[in-house]
Amino acid sequence: MKEISVGLAGLGTVGVAFFRALVRECESLVPVTGRKIKIYGVSAQNKNKDRGIDISSVKWFENPIDLAQDPNIDIFIELMGGASGSALNSVKAALNAQKAVITANKALIAEHGFELAKLAEQNNVPLSFEASSAGAVPAVRLLRDAFAGQPVRRIRGILNGTCNFILTRMEQLGSSFEDALKEAQVLGYAEADPTFDVDGFDTAHKLTILSSLAFGTAIESTGLTVQGIRSLTPIDLKAAEELGFRIKLLGYAEKFDHGIERRVEPVMLPKGTPLSESMDVLNAVAIKIDKVPEQTLVGPGAGGDATASAVMSDLVDIARGFNEPPFGRPANVLQNNLHVVEKQSLSPYYIRILAIDKAGTAARIAHHMAQKDISLESILQRHQHAFIDKDGKTPLVPVILITYATSEQNLSEALSNIANEKIIAQNPQVIRIEK
Amino acid sequence: MKEISVGLAGLGTVGVAFFRALVRECESLVPVTGRKIKIYGVSAQNKNKDRGIDISSVKWFENPIDLAQDPNIDIFIELMGGASGSALNSVKAALNAQKAVITANKALIAEHGFELAKLAEQNNVPLSFEASSAGAVPAVRLLRDAFAGQPVRRIRGILNGTCNFILTRMEQLGSSFEDALKEAQVLGYAEADPTFDVDGFDTAHKLTILSSLAFGTAIESTGLTVQGIRSLTPIDLKAAEELGFRIKLLGYAEKFDHGIERRVEPVMLPKGTPLSESMDVLNAVAIKIDKVPEQTLVGPGAGGDATASAVMSDLVDIARGFNEPPFGRPANVLQNNLHVVEKQSLSPYYIRILAIDKAGTAARIAHHMAQKDISLESILQRHQHAFIDKDGKTPLVPVILITYATSEQNLSEALSNIANEKIIAQNPQVIRIEK
Repeated sequence: MKEISVGLAGLGTVGVAFFRALVRECESLVPVTGRKIKIYGVSAQNKNKDRGIDISSVKWFENPIDLAQDPNIDIFIELMGGASGSALNSVKAALNAQKAVITANKALIAEHGFELAKLAEQNNVPLSFEASSAGAVPAVRLLRDAFAGQPVRRIRGILNGTCNFILTRMEQLGSSFEDALKEAQVLGYAEADPTFDVDGFDTAHKLTILSSLAFGTAIESTGLTVQGIRSLTPIDLKAAEELGFRIKLLGYAEKFDHGIERRVEPVMLPKGTPLSESMDVLNAVAIKIDKVPEQTLVGPGAGGDATASAVMSDLVDIARGFNEPPFGRPANVLQNNLHVVEKQSLSPYYIRILAIDKAGTAARIAHHMAQKDISLESILQRHQHAFIDKDGKTPLVPVILITYATSEQNLSEALSNIANEKIIAQNPQVIRIEK
Repeated sequence: MKEISVGLAGLGTVGVAFFRALVRECESLVPVTGRKIKIYGVSAQNKNKDRGIDISSVKWFENPIDLAQDPNIDIFIELMGGASGSALNSVKAALNAQKAVITANKALIAEHGFELAKLAEQNNVPLSFEASSAGAVPAVRLLRDAFAGQPVRRIRGILNGTCNFILTRMEQLGSSFEDALKEAQVLGYAEADPTFDVDGFDTAHKLTILSSLAFGTAIESTGLTVQGIRSLTPIDLKAAEELGFRIKLLGYAEKFDHGIERRVEPVMLPKGTPLSESMDVLNAVAIKIDKVPEQTLVGPGAGGDATASAVMSDLVDIARGFNEPPFGRPANVLQNNLHVVEKQSLSPYYIRILAIDKAGTAARIAHHMAQKDISLESILQRHQHAFIDKDGKTPLVPVILITYATSEQNLSEALSNIANEKIIAQNPQVIRIEK
């Protein structure tokens, strides 16, 4: 029985959880892989930090690149994070030294995945990244393997636990975005600088990875529309609830004949579906294949043990001999992304406009909608939320519109015409309603 | 590029859907497998039946066993069904002829999976059965591969679409079991003889397969408690709803130090979770690994195209060279099932008793519960559902009890003591409430 030696770079939350899991599960991995797997060496920033694990029996490397190329390791596991620097350099070094690589690093894969996949294939070694997207939810392997070659039409994902937690709190407690964010920070679900999460960039990275796997396109972290949740208010969450919907920050990608639409934005989803019932910090990925009803995977999107479990699943694959191309097909056949920017299908929309509270405003708004052939299901002024603008004199009132199905272009033109009349005080909040 | 030739036995709904899918996806499978896959031969009961597919370009075999051993095929796909006879014999013949085998046949795997796994391993060929359990929901591969070697603690599944549809109708429309079953039959979701579905045996087969994969035990289709949904009434569904719960026919298996508890029975699940929100004909599987929050997969559990998609996922694996033991570890290390029959944990229970409607009956029931240390959260007589027994004179009334957490043993003793007093008219309906 050939032993497998692992080099582990990064001993943060995930690294430590993985170290512990491998010690704990070492014996039970033998019957499923036919191999004994052990950690040969580790690398992290501070050798002497107390992490609650005993690293005395493994070799310490000051430089992760030295670990990555050490002749004694078979598999290099990168859990340091960061799209460049040590993470990128050590992964490249490992691949060039013909080591299998496992990483949980979404930024690295979203930004350098194509180049790294080519490098892995040139060196005939696997590069696996299940933990990079949707945490322990096994979306990567399902798109790469189970649905490979099948006509994936659309993927939709709740891919950021921080945003899902904030939206859950805003819905259930009526909290403001700011208060819900503070709570997430206190609980350790959000970073001190939450930009990356709440403005949708983290979701965009993960969507980029899943979209590439789903549609066989070269990974490309640009070319998608990204909108976060910062501008949402309890009024929006309440309105969604009254309509039988729930607001989720959704990453979704859909294939059309002329290209792929990729967007990250808050969407109203009908309650009572596996996707919309994924609450708190849960992640969820829904995959639609032609002719087959949608499938949804729901689970923990983050957390040390959950992420370590996803890393472990890659390790088992590789220990068993898995060596498919990282994106499920050779990098040289991955197609270029043809970006479809404009929303392709007609949808109803929820629109919250902060309007100047005077007679005729609602009529002018309705007029501009009608001009663009947009039928309104309802138009409601929320006078209980009226207030005086910062100038001390202009009365403002939120106006909530629900449209019937319309195109994004018509809607955006109508809203632009409304803005030109100077009867509104800030950019409207537009949320697509998914039936 | 080596071509792969498939022998397909069975041209029913799934067989035809798979045949069509392979014709349709033949080209897109090339980049993900590096192989061209084609159907060499087919076998079914009637060569001349019009199935809407053109089988003139493939070889016809009257006998599936001849197809299974034909030197021209690499992979034998069994979609005939049945736990024995042609299905069993042709799969054995294929394995003995060193052909890879794919089957969607849950009865075959639940009853002969251990023996077939040994045969596959002896012949060094793969035997895959993703479609045998939970249809297109990729539970088999996740347990076999992604979670292999990890400490799976519990699996819970809604594994029968017919039952899920019937329960959804009973909940949403207040239908009786009989009416909902008739509707399912009209829609083609239920067989003319629904016993296998509604009495829980189909769920038991699927649970047997998933449990073996989850816990590394030799597959064994006996030793589990099986209870179906035939005795449920709209009163039960209504009561669940009022409590904030939903009744699902759940297959679940949990690992304890001294063995594995496997049960199929209706359970009340709290609303608002991915599992409990899986409605209509959806299937769902929830997997709990130590230290990691539960993951849930939801999707179509049946249907030609969905099942064909699961078969296709096995085909892609095998075309890529997958050749792991069928249960994720060698058959000779699969452990014996140690059955745990009695429910291990304390639970609250819902109990519907059809009691003789006379003064003191409720008091006697409460007395017997108290005697066994069972605290009652509520006891309600449903006088609007009272009626006179078949004897023309005995007045009967449903009595609904909700208990606090108790052991199954205490509950069963209390109910037995109640039955001995001859104050009830039929076996009580007992439903565990899962918090």
